[in-house]
Amino acid sequence: MDLNDYVTAVEDFPITGVSFKDITPMLAAPAAFDHSVELLCQTARTLGGDKIAAFDARGFLWAAPMAVRLRLPLVPIRKKGKLPRATSSTSYKGEYGTETVEMHTDAIASGERILLVDDVIATGESMRAGAKLVEELGGTVTACLAVIELTYLGAQDLLKDLRVDSLLRY
Amino acid sequence: MDLNDYVTAVEDFPITGVSFKDITPMLAAPAAFDHSVELLCQTARTLGGDKIAAFDARGFLWAAPMAVRLRLPLVPIRKKGKLPRATSSTSYKGEYGTETVEMHTDAIASGERILLVDDVIATGESMRAGAKLVEELGGTVTACLAVIELTYLGAQDLLKDLRVDSLLRY
Repeated sequence: MDLNDYVTAVEDFPITGVSFKDITPMLAAPAAFDHSVELLCQTARTLGGDKIAAFDARGFLWAAPMAVRLRLPLVPIRKKGKLPRATSSTSYKGEYGTETVEMHTDAIASGERILLVDDVIATGESMRAGAKLVEELGGTVTACLAVIELTYLGAQDLLKDLRVDSLLRY
Repeated sequence: MDLNDYVTAVEDFPITGVSFKDITPMLAAPAAFDHSVELLCQTARTLGGDKIAAFDARGFLWAAPMAVRLRLPLVPIRKKGKLPRATSSTSYKGEYGTETVEMHTDAIASGERILLVDDVIATGESMRAGAKLVEELGGTVTACLAVIELTYLGAQDLLKDLRVDSLLRY
């Protein structure tokens, strides 16, 4: 199975000049979706990790099945104002504007090894922000896992001190 | 296992007077999270359904593992402007303001039976909106499934023509 067959490029979305990678065809194909989850789980099993931390919203789509399959705790990294208890937060310049992400301060304990999961790594800024939140709480990032990595937006430089594993690279 | 033990009430969030049901403790407990997914899957297996449609963002946390376990296609219902191809959309008065949700128009075919999945049913407005999108595309709603149902906000009236199944009721 070639997972590339389940990603559709949509040109000029959300703004002119961007080739958006639409992963809804993968979600719509149960065998492909399961396969993508399993491949990410295989990497996670090899690398090890105590918890999965996942990005609101599409990161949840892969991280939640991974957490169930791997029997690991799942920590949501959410957009500003969504988490109800005490949070750590950090802001970064996203592709389309400034973004602030938050994590509950009790979500990660000192020394825990965290697998960061998202659907797409574009500029790498959101993974960088997630890693910052993890490290501020005393955790370490085992790897940044994603279904898709866009290799032309500079994420490799921004995340050069972190391990990055993705299933598909464009 | 009592899933109630994995829900924390946070008072006055996001606004004064609201008792917010925080489900992050359930996500953090692999056995409890798996159990909640399995209970929802059991209901889904009993009722039948061709696809799962899930609400951005926390609905994804349960719907994605359900879709993998049940081998059903997963259709995201997203907030305005997030889906890249042609969408159907509908607006409703949410708990904290007007919300617009969208679904790809090719996500559901005529006659398909859809299981709507979210984490919490509060006023029922989002489930009502999801059902409207499903029905506009020719599908039928088999059931509205949720982890938590707040029984004091009127959802039972608003959704009285739909089947509603939830794991926890407050």
